[in-house]
Amino acid sequence: MRGAVLYGPRDVRFEERPDPRIVDPTDAIIRLSATCVCGSDLWPYRGVDKMAEPSPMGHEYVGIVEEVGKAVRNVRPGQFVVGSFFASDNSCEICRAGYQSSCIHRVPIGAIGTQAELARVPLADGTLVAAPGLPPEDLIPSFLAASDVLGTGWFGALAAGAGPGKTVAVVGDGAVGLLAVLAARRMGSDRIIAMSRHKPRQELARKFGATDIVTERGGEGVARIKELTNGLGAHSVVEAVGTQESMMQAIRSTRPGGHVGFVGVLHDVEIPGEEFFFSHVGLHGGPAPVRRFLPEFIDLIWNRKIDPGKVFDLALPLDQVAEGYRAMDERRAIKVLLRP
Amino acid sequence: MRGAVLYGPRDVRFEERPDPRIVDPTDAIIRLSATCVCGSDLWPYRGVDKMAEPSPMGHEYVGIVEEVGKAVRNVRPGQFVVGSFFASDNSCEICRAGYQSSCIHRVPIGAIGTQAELARVPLADGTLVAAPGLPPEDLIPSFLAASDVLGTGWFGALAAGAGPGKTVAVVGDGAVGLLAVLAARRMGSDRIIAMSRHKPRQELARKFGATDIVTERGGEGVARIKELTNGLGAHSVVEAVGTQESMMQAIRSTRPGGHVGFVGVLHDVEIPGEEFFFSHVGLHGGPAPVRRFLPEFIDLIWNRKIDPGKVFDLALPLDQVAEGYRAMDERRAIKVLLRP
Repeated sequence: MRGAVLYGPRDVRFEERPDPRIVDPTDAIIRLSATCVCGSDLWPYRGVDKMAEPSPMGHEYVGIVEEVGKAVRNVRPGQFVVGSFFASDNSCEICRAGYQSSCIHRVPIGAIGTQAELARVPLADGTLVAAPGLPPEDLIPSFLAASDVLGTGWFGALAAGAGPGKTVAVVGDGAVGLLAVLAARRMGSDRIIAMSRHKPRQELARKFGATDIVTERGGEGVARIKELTNGLGAHSVVEAVGTQESMMQAIRSTRPGGHVGFVGVLHDVEIPGEEFFFSHVGLHGGPAPVRRFLPEFIDLIWNRKIDPGKVFDLALPLDQVAEGYRAMDERRAIKVLLRP
Repeated sequence: MRGAVLYGPRDVRFEERPDPRIVDPTDAIIRLSATCVCGSDLWPYRGVDKMAEPSPMGHEYVGIVEEVGKAVRNVRPGQFVVGSFFASDNSCEICRAGYQSSCIHRVPIGAIGTQAELARVPLADGTLVAAPGLPPEDLIPSFLAASDVLGTGWFGALAAGAGPGKTVAVVGDGAVGLLAVLAARRMGSDRIIAMSRHKPRQELARKFGATDIVTERGGEGVARIKELTNGLGAHSVVEAVGTQESMMQAIRSTRPGGHVGFVGVLHDVEIPGEEFFFSHVGLHGGPAPVRRFLPEFIDLIWNRKIDPGKVFDLALPLDQVAEGYRAMDERRAIKVLLRP
């Protein structure tokens, strides 16, 4: 089969890779219907995350089950399935508490690489969730979004305490931030402030349910959020970037007793203790336990209640994966869908 | 009147200070029945927190109302009252959400100084809560504990998510840590692990409801907590110290999806973003909104359901306040009660 391999900064190649095969009896092999480039793929792509050797890329996926190991019970060949970026047993104490992305047996799908024609998914029973049938073509992007960015934005909104009576602010206008807006709306939040200075992203934020747009950043962004919230700050802030500046912007935009749901992978961030202590802000986040939400997402998408697939504003054949990375890197695209 | 004033590191003097008087119509003047030395008083006492000038000390208090301003409705002269270390209006949006220690009109009582014979309490209606009557002498220490350390330990346990089905670990064996044990027990937690290497404090932790004692610290302490929790870590950890070491010990002792309730004032702490992100641990804490809990505390203490006053293992006349500081500083006493 063919798949994407990152050789070094900005050097993504589409090349022949060995066909995956069942290794453990709990594995499944899927044929990708679609995959994509993630904001977090840009960290190694840009050379910020160092790599020791060439790495297969991609951790978002939807596809058709080709083959399952002997121990697999919940999915079978021919089914259309969605999985998350961490394989999980969905049965350990951590999974049962809803934190499947920290499953005691978790396997990072990124190490397997789903920007490819085929992929091996470990712990298939705990990881994959089948749709009610083969979805129509136009729903594929939304199912693919469910594999990571929708779940990540959703977890951010949930961890931030979004809901009725709440004002939610979202720092970051990438796919995750935009889908945090959708999640906050779906959770019944009163007011949703998207922080974005990019017209097309602002428009999508509005479509997903943002009631206000703030274009300012840093201290000015914080001041603007305070202005919009009676001087107090938002109840709930989603941090969907992962830098020192964005994290501090999120904490400072939150009122005392409020919460930041942080889902941007933190890079070179140090949270200053004393300011954080007196901010009275709660922090909850980390790798989104997307698996927790998949049954609900599949239902919402299958029944066309949400359309998270709108975040894909560029679709390319998989063999043009390198161009996909470039478009994301240069912010020409919010999110790039790849079709094998 | 006479009161304690800190002149510099380890230089506490008991001296004549001006009698407080009603400044704002929302003020009350109380005659202290008892006051005490707080662990947080040791930061300026040791010279870690710098002071620009000599400062009146103390922020914990119970007493009898002497006089009230014209606008005060909820308390009247002759009543025995308890208040918290931040005066609050108890009516703003932040107070109504239960975060009175971040009230938009808050006044730090520490700036007034309650290690004295009399004290002015601003925003008396929102700050002071009256007991049903004059309490018997033996309940005074427990009411005094309600003014800060009980509320702080309680908030820590609540922020950490203590409750039925939960294993709670407490980092710090000062009065706040010990009362976090009491709170976790009162909230119905299954298992409560106190981290302490001091015999008398271990015994008090057991009396308050600790089921296990861990004497190890740092990495070894974390390993011991993991051993006791199936390799996963505690669901809920209370951080009641405020140093880099104790905060990291708390985060690392918590399982993914669990929570740290941090109530030790953080000093020179930087929380490393990447480790924190992947820990999947939630952080909530800050200055405890003690006022939220006062009506419940007064009821529990009045009816002798809890006895948080046990944390006072040394009682001195107020004029020996300097010896009180020394005893706390040298860890000869868990907490020192002072009687004017």
